[in-house]
Amino acid sequence: MKNNRHDPEIITSLQNPRVKEVTALQSSSSLRREKGLFVVEGLREVERCLESGFRLRSVFYCPSVCRHVPTPSEGVRVFEVSEAVYGKMAYRGGTEGILAVVCGNAGDRSLEALDRVLSGDSSAPLIVVVESVEKPGNLGAMLRTADASGVSAVLVCDPHTDLYNPNLIRASLGGVFTRNIAVCSSEEAIAWLKARGISILTAQLQDSELYYDTDMTRPTALVFGTEADGLTDIWRRAADAHIRIPMLGRIDSLNVSASMAVLCYEALRQRHGQPQRGSHRND
Amino acid sequence: MKNNRHDPEIITSLQNPRVKEVTALQSSSSLRREKGLFVVEGLREVERCLESGFRLRSVFYCPSVCRHVPTPSEGVRVFEVSEAVYGKMAYRGGTEGILAVVCGNAGDRSLEALDRVLSGDSSAPLIVVVESVEKPGNLGAMLRTADASGVSAVLVCDPHTDLYNPNLIRASLGGVFTRNIAVCSSEEAIAWLKARGISILTAQLQDSELYYDTDMTRPTALVFGTEADGLTDIWRRAADAHIRIPMLGRIDSLNVSASMAVLCYEALRQRHGQPQRGSHRND
Repeated sequence: MKNNRHDPEIITSLQNPRVKEVTALQSSSSLRREKGLFVVEGLREVERCLESGFRLRSVFYCPSVCRHVPTPSEGVRVFEVSEAVYGKMAYRGGTEGILAVVCGNAGDRSLEALDRVLSGDSSAPLIVVVESVEKPGNLGAMLRTADASGVSAVLVCDPHTDLYNPNLIRASLGGVFTRNIAVCSSEEAIAWLKARGISILTAQLQDSELYYDTDMTRPTALVFGTEADGLTDIWRRAADAHIRIPMLGRIDSLNVSASMAVLCYEALRQRHGQPQRGSHRND
Repeated sequence: MKNNRHDPEIITSLQNPRVKEVTALQSSSSLRREKGLFVVEGLREVERCLESGFRLRSVFYCPSVCRHVPTPSEGVRVFEVSEAVYGKMAYRGGTEGILAVVCGNAGDRSLEALDRVLSGDSSAPLIVVVESVEKPGNLGAMLRTADASGVSAVLVCDPHTDLYNPNLIRASLGGVFTRNIAVCSSEEAIAWLKARGISILTAQLQDSELYYDTDMTRPTALVFGTEADGLTDIWRRAADAHIRIPMLGRIDSLNVSASMAVLCYEALRQRHGQPQRGSHRND
Protein backbone atom coordinates (compact mmCIF):
# COMPACT_ATOMS: atom_id res chain seq x y z
CA MET A 1 0.00 0.00 0.00
CA LYS A 2 1.19 3.48 -0.90
CA ASN A 3 0.43 6.83 0.55
CA ASN A 4 -0.35 9.51 -2.02
CA ARG A 5 3.13 10.88 -1.91
CA HIS A 6 5.23 8.67 0.33
CA ASP A 7 5.67 5.11 1.37
CA PRO A 8 3.98 4.55 4.72
CA GLU A 9 5.95 5.27 7.83
CA ILE A 10 6.84 2.07 9.67
CA ILE A 11 6.32 1.77 13.43
CA THR A 12 7.92 -1.07 15.37
CA SER A 13 8.35 0.50 18.81
CA LEU A 14 5.70 0.02 21.49
CA GLN A 15 6.89 3.33 22.95
CA ASN A 16 6.05 5.33 19.81
CA PRO A 17 3.88 8.32 20.80
CA ARG A 18 1.30 7.49 18.12
CA VAL A 19 0.90 4.02 19.60
CA LYS A 20 0.46 5.53 23.04
CA GLU A 21 -2.13 7.99 21.75
CA VAL A 22 -4.21 5.18 20.21
CA THR A 23 -4.18 3.08 23.38
CA ALA A 24 -5.13 6.16 25.43
CA LEU A 25 -8.02 6.98 23.06
CA GLN A 26 -9.24 3.38 23.30
CA SER A 27 -9.46 3.47 27.08
CA SER A 28 -10.47 7.04 27.93
CA SER A 29 -13.81 8.57 27.01
CA SER A 30 -12.74 11.95 28.41
CA LEU A 31 -9.69 11.96 26.13
CA ARG A 32 -11.94 11.07 23.17
CA ARG A 33 -14.15 14.02 24.00
CA GLU A 34 -11.27 16.39 24.67
CA LYS A 35 -9.47 15.60 21.41
CA GLY A 36 -12.55 14.99 19.26
CA LEU A 37 -11.02 11.72 18.11
CA PHE A 38 -11.85 8.04 18.42
CA VAL A 39 -10.49 4.70 17.20
CA VAL A 40 -12.18 2.29 14.80
CA GLU A 41 -10.94 -1.27 14.28
CA GLY A 42 -11.71 -3.61 11.43
CA LEU A 43 -12.01 -3.13 7.69
CA ARG A 44 -15.80 -3.22 7.57
CA GLU A 45 -16.07 -0.76 10.43
CA VAL A 46 -13.56 1.64 8.87
CA GLU A 47 -15.45 1.48 5.57
CA ARG A 48 -18.81 2.17 7.27
CA CYS A 49 -17.21 5.08 9.05
CA LEU A 50 -16.05 6.56 5.72
CA GLU A 51 -19.41 5.94 4.03
CA SER A 52 -21.08 7.91 6.80
CA GLY A 53 -18.91 10.94 6.16
CA PHE A 54 -16.47 10.65 9.02
CA ARG A 55 -12.94 11.82 8.25
CA LEU A 56 -9.96 9.62 9.05
CA ARG A 57 -6.91 11.25 10.56
CA SER A 58 -4.61 8.23 10.35
CA VAL A 59 -4.68 4.57 9.42
CA PHE A 60 -2.53 1.85 11.03
CA TYR A 61 -2.25 -1.54 9.41
CA CYS A 62 -0.29 -4.70 10.01
CA PRO A 63 0.75 -6.11 6.60
CA SER A 64 1.14 -9.69 7.86
CA VAL A 65 -2.51 -9.79 9.01
CA CYS A 66 -4.46 -7.21 7.02
CA ARG A 67 -5.83 -8.49 3.71
CA HIS A 68 -7.39 -5.31 2.34
CA VAL A 69 -6.32 -1.78 3.08
CA PRO A 70 -8.82 0.89 2.01
CA THR A 71 -7.30 3.61 -0.14
CA PRO A 72 -7.13 6.62 2.12
CA SER A 73 -8.13 10.04 0.91
CA GLU A 74 -5.80 13.02 0.70
CA GLY A 75 -4.37 14.10 4.02
CA VAL A 76 -4.73 10.77 5.82
CA ARG A 77 -1.46 9.55 7.33
CA VAL A 78 -0.83 5.83 6.83
CA PHE A 79 1.39 3.77 9.13
CA GLU A 80 2.59 0.23 8.74
CA VAL A 81 2.97 -1.43 12.14
CA SER A 82 4.47 -4.67 13.44
CA GLU A 83 2.24 -7.39 14.88
CA ALA A 84 3.41 -6.53 18.39
CA VAL A 85 2.53 -2.87 17.92
CA TYR A 86 -0.83 -3.73 16.39
CA GLY A 87 -1.54 -6.10 19.26
CA LYS A 88 -0.91 -3.30 21.72
CA MET A 89 -3.10 -0.75 19.91
CA ALA A 90 -6.01 -3.02 19.08
CA TYR A 91 -8.81 -3.52 21.56
CA ARG A 92 -9.97 -6.65 19.78
CA GLY A 93 -6.65 -8.45 19.69
CA GLY A 94 -5.77 -7.71 16.11
CA THR A 95 -7.87 -10.15 14.16
CA GLU A 96 -8.14 -7.95 11.10
CA GLY A 97 -4.95 -5.92 11.29
CA ILE A 98 -6.38 -2.49 10.53
CA LEU A 99 -7.49 0.43 12.64
CA ALA A 100 -8.01 4.15 12.14
CA VAL A 101 -8.03 7.27 14.23
CA VAL A 102 -11.18 9.16 13.27
CA CYS A 103 -12.30 12.77 13.74
CA GLY A 104 -15.51 12.66 15.78
CA ASN A 105 -16.76 16.11 14.88
CA ALA A 106 -18.42 14.84 11.67
CA GLY A 107 -20.91 13.03 13.87
CA ASP A 108 -23.52 15.67 14.63
CA ARG A 109 -25.80 13.80 17.00
CA SER A 110 -28.31 16.60 17.68
CA LEU A 111 -32.06 16.29 17.16
CA GLU A 112 -31.77 19.09 14.59
CA ALA A 113 -29.31 17.01 12.56
CA LEU A 114 -31.64 14.04 12.89
CA ASP A 115 -34.51 16.12 11.49
CA ARG A 116 -32.40 16.82 8.40
CA VAL A 117 -31.63 13.09 8.00
CA LEU A 118 -35.29 12.11 8.34
CA SER A 119 -36.73 14.88 6.16
CA GLY A 120 -38.28 13.50 3.00
CA ASP A 121 -39.10 10.10 4.54
CA SER A 122 -42.89 10.00 4.37
CA SER A 123 -43.40 6.58 5.96
CA ALA A 124 -44.64 6.30 9.55
CA PRO A 125 -41.48 6.59 11.62
CA LEU A 126 -40.37 3.81 13.94
CA ILE A 127 -38.11 5.31 16.60
CA VAL A 128 -36.12 3.45 19.23
CA VAL A 129 -35.37 5.31 22.47
CA VAL A 130 -32.68 3.99 24.79
CA GLU A 131 -32.59 5.61 28.22
CA SER A 132 -29.44 5.73 30.35
CA VAL A 133 -27.98 2.48 29.10
CA GLU A 134 -24.93 1.52 31.11
CA LYS A 135 -23.24 -1.25 29.17
CA PRO A 136 -21.60 -0.08 25.94
CA GLY A 137 -21.90 -3.59 24.50
CA ASN A 138 -25.67 -3.55 25.00
CA LEU A 139 -26.05 -0.18 23.32
CA GLY A 140 -23.85 -1.35 20.44
CA ALA A 141 -25.94 -4.49 19.99
CA MET A 142 -29.08 -2.34 19.95
CA LEU A 143 -27.65 -0.09 17.24
CA ARG A 144 -26.84 -3.17 15.15
CA THR A 145 -30.39 -4.46 15.53
CA ALA A 146 -31.80 -0.99 14.80
CA ASP A 147 -29.94 -0.95 11.51
CA ALA A 148 -30.96 -4.50 10.57
CA SER A 149 -34.63 -3.98 11.37
CA GLY A 150 -34.80 -0.68 9.50
CA VAL A 151 -35.82 1.64 12.32
CA SER A 152 -36.03 5.28 11.30
CA ALA A 153 -33.89 6.62 14.13
CA VAL A 154 -32.43 5.88 17.55
CA LEU A 155 -32.57 8.45 20.35
CA VAL A 156 -29.89 7.78 22.96
CA CYS A 157 -31.03 9.60 26.11
CA ASP A 158 -28.78 10.57 29.01
CA PRO A 159 -26.22 7.89 28.14
CA HIS A 160 -23.59 6.74 30.63
CA THR A 161 -21.18 6.06 27.78
CA ASP A 162 -20.02 8.03 24.75
CA LEU A 163 -20.89 6.51 21.38
CA TYR A 164 -17.24 5.87 20.51
CA ASN A 165 -16.41 3.39 23.26
CA PRO A 166 -14.55 0.48 21.58
CA ASN A 167 -16.94 -2.12 23.00
CA LEU A 168 -19.89 -0.17 21.63
CA ILE A 169 -18.38 0.24 18.15
CA ARG A 170 -17.53 -3.45 18.07
CA ALA A 171 -20.94 -4.70 19.18
CA SER A 172 -22.65 -2.35 16.71
CA LEU A 173 -20.63 -3.78 13.79
CA GLY A 174 -20.25 -0.18 12.63
CA GLY A 175 -23.96 0.58 13.04
CA VAL A 176 -22.96 3.43 15.35
CA PHE A 177 -21.81 5.39 12.29
CA THR A 178 -25.23 5.67 10.68
CA ARG A 179 -26.58 9.21 10.61
CA ASN A 180 -29.93 8.46 12.20
CA ILE A 181 -28.72 8.43 15.81
CA ALA A 182 -29.26 11.42 18.10
CA VAL A 183 -28.02 11.93 21.65
CA CYS A 184 -30.21 14.08 23.89
CA SER A 185 -31.88 14.33 27.27
CA SER A 186 -35.07 12.40 28.01
CA GLU A 187 -36.97 15.71 28.25
CA GLU A 188 -35.77 16.76 24.79
CA ALA A 189 -36.65 13.37 23.34
CA ILE A 190 -40.17 13.43 24.75
CA ALA A 191 -40.78 16.96 23.44
CA TRP A 192 -39.44 15.92 20.02
CA LEU A 193 -41.67 12.82 19.86
CA LYS A 194 -44.81 14.62 21.10
CA ALA A 195 -44.31 17.47 18.60
CA ARG A 196 -44.30 14.93 15.79
CA GLY A 197 -47.33 12.97 16.99
CA ILE A 198 -45.27 9.83 17.56
CA SER A 199 -46.91 7.35 19.91
CA ILE A 200 -44.67 6.46 22.88
CA LEU A 201 -44.69 2.77 23.88
CA THR A 202 -42.66 1.87 26.95
CA ALA A 203 -41.52 -1.70 27.48
CA GLN A 204 -42.00 -2.88 31.04
CA LEU A 205 -43.07 -5.98 32.88
CA GLN A 206 -46.14 -4.90 34.82
CA ASP A 207 -49.48 -3.21 34.14
CA SER A 208 -49.23 -3.35 30.43
CA GLU A 209 -50.63 -4.88 27.28
CA LEU A 210 -49.03 -7.65 25.27
CA TYR A 211 -46.76 -6.21 22.61
CA TYR A 212 -48.32 -8.22 19.78
CA ASP A 213 -51.76 -6.84 20.59
CA THR A 214 -50.44 -3.29 20.18
CA ASP A 215 -50.68 -1.41 16.90
CA MET A 216 -47.21 -0.40 15.79
CA THR A 217 -48.15 0.61 12.25
CA ARG A 218 -48.73 4.26 13.17
CA PRO A 219 -45.76 6.56 14.04
CA THR A 220 -44.25 4.73 17.01
CA ALA A 221 -41.42 5.10 19.50
CA LEU A 222 -40.30 2.03 21.46
CA VAL A 223 -38.61 3.05 24.72
CA PHE A 224 -36.15 0.88 26.67
CA GLY A 225 -34.64 1.56 30.10
CA THR A 226 -31.62 0.21 31.90
CA GLU A 227 -31.48 -3.46 32.72
CA ALA A 228 -31.02 -2.76 36.41
CA ASP A 229 -33.68 -0.14 37.06
CA GLY A 230 -35.94 -0.08 34.01
CA LEU A 231 -37.41 3.21 32.84
CA THR A 232 -37.57 6.39 34.87
CA ASP A 233 -40.85 8.01 35.82
CA ILE A 234 -40.55 10.71 33.18
CA TRP A 235 -40.91 8.06 30.47
CA ARG A 236 -43.65 6.13 32.26
CA ARG A 237 -45.66 9.34 32.52
CA ALA A 238 -45.02 10.30 28.90
CA ALA A 239 -46.09 6.88 27.57
CA ASP A 240 -49.15 6.44 25.39
CA ALA A 241 -49.10 2.71 26.22
CA HIS A 242 -47.09 0.32 28.35
CA ILE A 243 -46.33 -2.84 26.48
CA ARG A 244 -45.11 -6.16 27.80
CA ILE A 245 -43.18 -9.08 26.40
CA PRO A 246 -44.48 -12.27 28.03
CA MET A 247 -42.00 -13.99 30.33
CA LEU A 248 -42.72 -17.69 30.58
CA GLY A 249 -39.67 -18.94 32.44
CA ARG A 250 -38.03 -18.65 35.79
CA ILE A 251 -35.81 -15.79 34.65
CA ASP A 252 -38.18 -12.85 34.66
CA SER A 253 -36.38 -10.65 32.17
CA LEU A 254 -34.89 -10.57 28.71
CA ASN A 255 -31.64 -8.85 27.88
CA VAL A 256 -32.53 -5.32 26.75
CA SER A 257 -31.11 -5.90 23.27
CA ALA A 258 -33.14 -9.12 22.93
CA SER A 259 -36.29 -7.22 23.99
CA MET A 260 -35.53 -4.58 21.44
CA ALA A 261 -35.06 -7.14 18.65
CA VAL A 262 -38.42 -8.74 19.48
CA LEU A 263 -40.30 -5.42 19.47
CA CYS A 264 -38.62 -3.89 16.40
CA TYR A 265 -39.27 -7.01 14.35
CA GLU A 266 -42.88 -7.15 15.53
CA ALA A 267 -43.28 -3.58 14.27
CA LEU A 268 -41.68 -4.60 10.98
CA ARG A 269 -43.93 -7.67 10.73
CA GLN A 270 -47.01 -5.55 11.29
CA ARG A 271 -45.84 -2.98 8.76
CA HIS A 272 -44.46 -5.24 6.04
CA GLY A 273 -45.97 -8.62 6.77
CA GLN A 274 -48.79 -10.27 4.90
CA PRO A 275 -52.04 -8.39 5.58
CA GLN A 276 -53.90 -10.05 8.43
CA ARG A 277 -57.33 -10.24 6.87
CA GLY A 278 -60.02 -9.69 9.47
CA SER A 279 -57.50 -9.21 12.25
CA HIS A 280 -58.20 -6.54 14.84
CA ARG A 281 -55.16 -4.61 13.64
CA ASN A 282 -56.85 -3.75 10.38
CA ASP A 283 -60.37 -3.35 11.63
CA MET B 1 -23.90 -16.91 58.92
CA LYS B 2 -23.32 -20.19 60.73
CA ASN B 3 -22.37 -23.57 59.45
CA ASN B 4 -24.43 -26.41 60.89
CA ARG B 5 -21.79 -27.31 63.40
CA HIS B 6 -19.03 -24.72 63.19
CA ASP B 7 -18.46 -21.08 62.50
CA PRO B 8 -17.26 -20.61 58.92
CA GLU B 9 -13.57 -20.87 58.27
CA ILE B 10 -12.10 -17.47 57.44
CA ILE B 11 -9.79 -17.06 54.42
CA THR B 12 -7.69 -13.94 54.07
CA SER B 13 -4.69 -15.24 52.11
CA LEU B 14 -4.62 -14.99 48.32
CA GLN B 15 -2.32 -18.02 48.40
CA ASN B 16 -4.88 -20.28 50.10
CA PRO B 17 -5.21 -23.51 48.05
CA ARG B 18 -9.01 -23.19 47.95
CA VAL B 19 -8.69 -19.75 46.42
CA LYS B 20 -6.28 -21.10 43.84
CA GLU B 21 -8.63 -23.97 43.02
CA VAL B 22 -11.54 -21.58 42.39
CA THR B 23 -9.51 -19.33 40.09
CA ALA B 24 -8.27 -22.39 38.19
CA LEU B 25 -11.83 -23.75 37.79
CA GLN B 26 -12.97 -20.34 36.51
CA SER B 27 -10.37 -20.25 33.77
CA SER B 28 -9.96 -23.89 32.67
CA SER B 29 -12.67 -25.91 30.99
CA SER B 30 -10.47 -29.03 31.03
CA LEU B 31 -10.06 -28.73 34.80
CA ARG B 32 -13.83 -28.33 35.15
CA ARG B 33 -14.33 -31.51 33.17
CA GLU B 34 -11.59 -33.42 34.97
CA LYS B 35 -12.83 -32.55 38.46
CA GLY B 36 -16.55 -32.50 37.66
CA LEU B 37 -16.79 -29.11 39.35
CA PHE B 38 -17.63 -25.59 38.30
CA VAL B 39 -18.04 -22.16 39.90
CA VAL B 40 -21.25 -20.14 40.18
CA GLU B 41 -21.28 -16.47 41.20
CA GLY B 42 -24.18 -14.41 42.44
CA LEU B 43 -27.03 -15.14 44.83
CA ARG B 44 -29.69 -15.61 42.17
CA GLU B 45 -27.47 -17.93 40.16
CA VAL B 46 -26.56 -20.04 43.20
CA GLU B 47 -30.24 -20.32 44.09
CA ARG B 48 -31.19 -21.38 40.54
CA CYS B 49 -28.44 -23.95 40.67
CA LEU B 50 -29.84 -25.43 43.89
CA GLU B 51 -33.43 -25.37 42.58
CA SER B 52 -32.29 -27.42 39.60
CA GLY B 53 -30.86 -30.13 41.81
CA PHE B 54 -27.18 -29.33 41.59
CA ARG B 55 -25.19 -30.05 44.74
CA LEU B 56 -22.90 -27.39 46.21
CA ARG B 57 -19.51 -28.47 47.49
CA SER B 58 -18.54 -25.19 49.09
CA VAL B 59 -19.75 -21.60 49.43
CA PHE B 60 -17.50 -18.54 49.72
CA TYR B 61 -18.95 -15.23 50.80
CA CYS B 62 -17.62 -11.80 51.60
CA PRO B 63 -19.57 -10.46 54.60
CA SER B 64 -18.89 -6.78 53.78
CA VAL B 65 -20.54 -7.15 50.33
CA CYS B 66 -22.94 -10.08 50.49
CA ARG B 67 -26.43 -9.19 51.68
CA HIS B 68 -28.03 -12.63 51.72
CA VAL B 69 -26.29 -15.94 52.20
CA PRO B 70 -28.40 -18.99 51.30
CA THR B 71 -28.57 -21.57 54.05
CA PRO B 72 -26.40 -24.40 52.82
CA SER B 73 -27.51 -27.98 53.16
CA GLU B 74 -25.69 -30.59 55.19
CA GLY B 75 -22.15 -31.28 54.03
CA VAL B 76 -21.55 -27.95 52.30
CA ARG B 77 -18.41 -26.20 53.54
CA VAL B 78 -18.84 -22.46 54.07
CA PHE B 79 -15.96 -20.00 53.97
CA GLU B 80 -15.90 -16.34 54.87
CA VAL B 81 -13.42 -14.46 52.69
CA SER B 82 -11.91 -10.98 52.67
CA GLU B 83 -12.76 -8.53 49.89
CA ALA B 84 -9.31 -9.02 48.38
CA VAL B 85 -9.74 -12.80 48.30
CA TYR B 86 -13.24 -12.51 46.86
CA GLY B 87 -11.98 -10.10 44.22
CA LYS B 88 -9.38 -12.65 43.17
CA MET B 89 -11.82 -15.59 43.00
CA ALA B 90 -14.71 -13.79 41.32
CA TYR B 91 -14.90 -13.57 37.56
CA ARG B 92 -17.39 -10.73 37.77
CA GLY B 93 -15.47 -8.47 40.09
CA GLY B 94 -17.33 -9.23 43.28
CA THR B 95 -20.53 -7.25 42.92
CA GLU B 96 -22.60 -9.67 44.98
CA GLY B 97 -20.04 -11.19 47.26
CA ILE B 98 -21.06 -14.83 46.98
CA LEU B 99 -19.89 -17.76 44.90
CA ALA B 100 -20.11 -21.53 45.13
CA VAL B 101 -18.18 -24.51 43.88
CA VAL B 102 -20.75 -26.88 42.39
CA CYS B 103 -20.65 -30.57 41.49
CA GLY B 104 -21.38 -30.81 37.76
CA ASN B 105 -22.42 -34.43 37.68
CA ALA B 106 -26.03 -33.59 38.59
CA GLY B 107 -26.36 -32.06 35.16
CA ASP B 108 -27.20 -35.00 32.92
CA ARG B 109 -27.28 -33.34 29.51
CA SER B 110 -28.08 -36.40 27.40
CA LEU B 111 -31.04 -36.68 25.01
CA GLU B 112 -32.31 -39.55 27.17
CA ALA B 113 -32.40 -37.28 30.21
CA LEU B 114 -34.16 -34.64 28.12
CA ASP B 115 -36.82 -37.18 27.14
CA ARG B 116 -37.54 -37.76 30.81
CA VAL B 117 -37.81 -34.00 31.41
CA LEU B 118 -40.18 -33.53 28.47
CA SER B 119 -42.37 -36.58 29.09
CA GLY B 120 -45.88 -35.60 30.06
CA ASP B 121 -45.80 -32.29 28.18
CA SER B 122 -48.47 -32.74 25.55
CA SER B 123 -48.14 -29.32 23.87
CA ALA B 124 -46.44 -29.02 20.49
CA PRO B 125 -42.76 -28.74 21.38
CA LEU B 126 -40.72 -25.70 20.42
CA ILE B 127 -37.05 -26.71 20.33
CA VAL B 128 -34.06 -24.43 19.85
CA VAL B 129 -30.95 -25.97 18.28
CA VAL B 130 -27.63 -24.15 18.57
CA GLU B 131 -24.86 -25.53 16.36
CA SER B 132 -21.20 -25.08 17.20
CA VAL B 133 -21.56 -21.75 18.91
CA GLU B 134 -18.19 -20.24 19.68
CA LYS B 135 -18.83 -17.38 22.07
CA PRO B 136 -19.90 -18.52 25.55
CA GLY B 137 -21.62 -15.16 26.09
CA ASN B 138 -23.81 -15.71 23.03
CA LEU B 139 -24.82 -19.20 24.12
CA GLY B 140 -25.56 -17.89 27.60
CA ALA B 141 -27.75 -15.12 26.21
CA MET B 142 -29.61 -17.67 24.10
CA LEU B 143 -30.28 -19.87 27.14
CA ARG B 144 -31.67 -16.84 28.97
CA THR B 145 -33.98 -16.04 26.06
CA ALA B 146 -34.97 -19.71 25.75
CA ASP B 147 -36.10 -19.69 29.36
CA ALA B 148 -37.96 -16.38 29.05
CA SER B 149 -39.78 -17.36 25.87
CA GLY B 150 -40.80 -20.74 27.23
CA VAL B 151 -39.13 -23.02 24.68
CA SER B 152 -39.49 -26.71 25.47
CA ALA B 153 -35.81 -27.56 25.16
CA VAL B 154 -32.45 -26.42 23.82
CA LEU B 155 -30.15 -28.81 21.96
CA VAL B 156 -26.56 -27.61 22.07
CA CYS B 157 -24.80 -29.38 19.20
CA ASP B 158 -21.04 -29.85 18.89
CA PRO B 159 -20.29 -26.89 21.19
CA HIS B 160 -16.89 -25.23 21.31
CA THR B 161 -17.43 -24.41 24.96
CA ASP B 162 -18.58 -26.36 28.00
CA LEU B 163 -21.81 -25.18 29.61
CA TYR B 164 -20.05 -24.10 32.81
CA ASN B 165 -17.85 -21.36 31.37
CA PRO B 166 -18.21 -18.32 33.69
CA ASN B 167 -19.17 -16.00 30.80
CA LEU B 168 -21.88 -18.43 29.75
CA ILE B 169 -23.32 -18.82 33.25
CA ARG B 170 -23.31 -15.06 33.69
CA ALA B 171 -24.99 -14.25 30.38
CA SER B 172 -27.61 -16.95 30.98
CA LEU B 173 -28.54 -15.44 34.38
CA GLY B 174 -28.63 -19.00 35.66
CA GLY B 175 -30.74 -20.25 32.72
CA VAL B 176 -27.99 -22.80 32.05
CA PHE B 177 -29.15 -24.74 35.12
CA THR B 178 -32.59 -25.57 33.76
CA ARG B 179 -33.06 -29.28 33.06
CA ASN B 180 -34.27 -28.93 29.48
CA ILE B 181 -30.85 -28.51 27.87
CA ALA B 182 -29.14 -31.41 26.09
CA VAL B 183 -25.66 -31.53 24.59
CA CYS B 184 -25.21 -33.83 21.61
CA SER B 185 -23.86 -34.10 18.07
CA SER B 186 -25.74 -32.61 15.14
CA GLU B 187 -26.41 -36.14 13.81
CA GLU B 188 -27.94 -37.21 17.10
CA ALA B 189 -30.06 -34.06 17.27
CA ILE B 190 -31.41 -34.54 13.73
CA ALA B 191 -32.28 -38.17 14.42
CA TRP B 192 -34.00 -37.17 17.68
CA LEU B 193 -36.05 -34.43 15.98
CA LYS B 194 -37.02 -36.57 12.96
CA ALA B 195 -38.09 -39.49 15.20
CA ARG B 196 -40.47 -37.13 17.00
CA GLY B 197 -41.91 -35.54 13.85
CA ILE B 198 -40.56 -32.12 14.76
CA SER B 199 -40.31 -29.76 11.80
CA ILE B 200 -36.77 -28.38 11.33
CA LEU B 201 -36.58 -24.69 10.41
CA THR B 202 -33.11 -23.32 9.73
CA ALA B 203 -32.45 -19.59 9.97
CA GLN B 204 -30.35 -18.28 7.11
CA LEU B 205 -30.16 -15.23 4.89
CA GLN B 206 -30.70 -16.63 1.39
CA ASP B 207 -33.21 -18.82 -0.45
CA SER B 208 -35.75 -18.87 2.26
CA GLU B 209 -39.19 -17.75 3.30
CA LEU B 210 -39.95 -14.90 5.67
CA TYR B 211 -40.15 -16.17 9.22
CA TYR B 212 -43.51 -14.57 9.91
CA ASP B 213 -45.05 -16.37 6.94
CA THR B 214 -43.98 -19.72 8.40
CA ASP B 215 -46.26 -21.81 10.58
CA MET B 216 -44.57 -22.40 13.93
CA THR B 217 -47.63 -23.73 15.73
CA ARG B 218 -46.84 -27.36 14.91
CA PRO B 219 -43.91 -29.16 16.62
CA THR B 220 -40.98 -26.98 15.56
CA ALA B 221 -37.21 -26.80 15.91
CA LEU B 222 -35.46 -23.48 15.21
CA VAL B 223 -31.82 -24.05 14.25
CA PHE B 224 -29.05 -21.46 14.58
CA GLY B 225 -25.46 -21.69 13.34
CA THR B 226 -22.31 -19.83 14.23
CA GLU B 227 -22.14 -16.13 13.53
CA ALA B 228 -19.06 -16.53 11.39
CA ASP B 229 -20.03 -19.45 9.16
CA GLY B 230 -23.74 -20.03 9.63
CA LEU B 231 -25.11 -23.55 9.54
CA THR B 232 -23.30 -26.59 8.24
CA ASP B 233 -24.61 -28.61 5.30
CA ILE B 234 -25.94 -31.38 7.50
CA TRP B 235 -28.51 -28.99 8.95
CA ARG B 236 -29.32 -27.35 5.63
CA ARG B 237 -30.08 -30.80 4.17
CA ALA B 238 -32.12 -31.86 7.20
CA ALA B 239 -34.26 -28.73 7.11
CA ASP B 240 -37.97 -28.83 6.35
CA ALA B 241 -37.87 -25.10 5.60
CA HIS B 242 -35.30 -22.33 5.44
CA ILE B 243 -36.58 -19.22 7.11
CA ARG B 244 -35.27 -15.69 6.87
CA ILE B 245 -35.38 -12.61 9.05
CA PRO B 246 -35.52 -9.54 6.79
CA MET B 247 -32.43 -7.35 6.91
CA LEU B 248 -33.25 -3.78 5.99
CA GLY B 249 -30.02 -2.00 6.85
CA ARG B 250 -26.45 -1.84 5.75
CA ILE B 251 -25.37 -4.41 8.31
CA ASP B 252 -26.57 -7.66 6.80
CA SER B 253 -26.83 -9.73 9.93
CA LEU B 254 -28.31 -9.81 13.39
CA ASN B 255 -26.49 -11.13 16.40
CA VAL B 256 -27.41 -14.81 16.76
CA SER B 257 -29.05 -14.25 20.13
CA ALA B 258 -31.12 -11.38 18.70
CA SER B 259 -32.22 -13.63 15.81
CA MET B 260 -33.19 -16.29 18.27
CA ALA B 261 -35.24 -13.86 20.38
CA VAL B 262 -37.12 -12.70 17.26
CA LEU B 263 -37.95 -16.25 16.12
CA CYS B 264 -38.82 -17.71 19.52
CA TYR B 265 -41.18 -14.84 20.29
CA GLU B 266 -42.78 -15.13 16.85
CA ALA B 267 -43.47 -18.79 17.64
CA LEU B 268 -44.91 -17.74 21.00
CA ARG B 269 -47.03 -15.04 19.33
CA GLN B 270 -48.41 -17.56 16.84
CA ARG B 271 -49.11 -20.07 19.60
CA HIS B 272 -50.46 -17.80 22.32
CA GLY B 273 -51.44 -14.65 20.51
CA GLN B 274 -54.95 -13.59 19.63
CA PRO B 275 -56.39 -15.90 16.95
CA GLN B 276 -55.79 -14.41 13.52
CA ARG B 277 -59.27 -14.78 12.11
CA GLY B 278 -59.09 -15.56 8.42
CA SER B 279 -55.31 -15.46 8.34
CA HIS B 280 -53.54 -18.05 6.24
CA ARG B 281 -52.12 -19.63 9.37
CA ASN B 282 -55.51 -20.87 10.43
CA ASP B 283 -56.93 -21.69 7.00
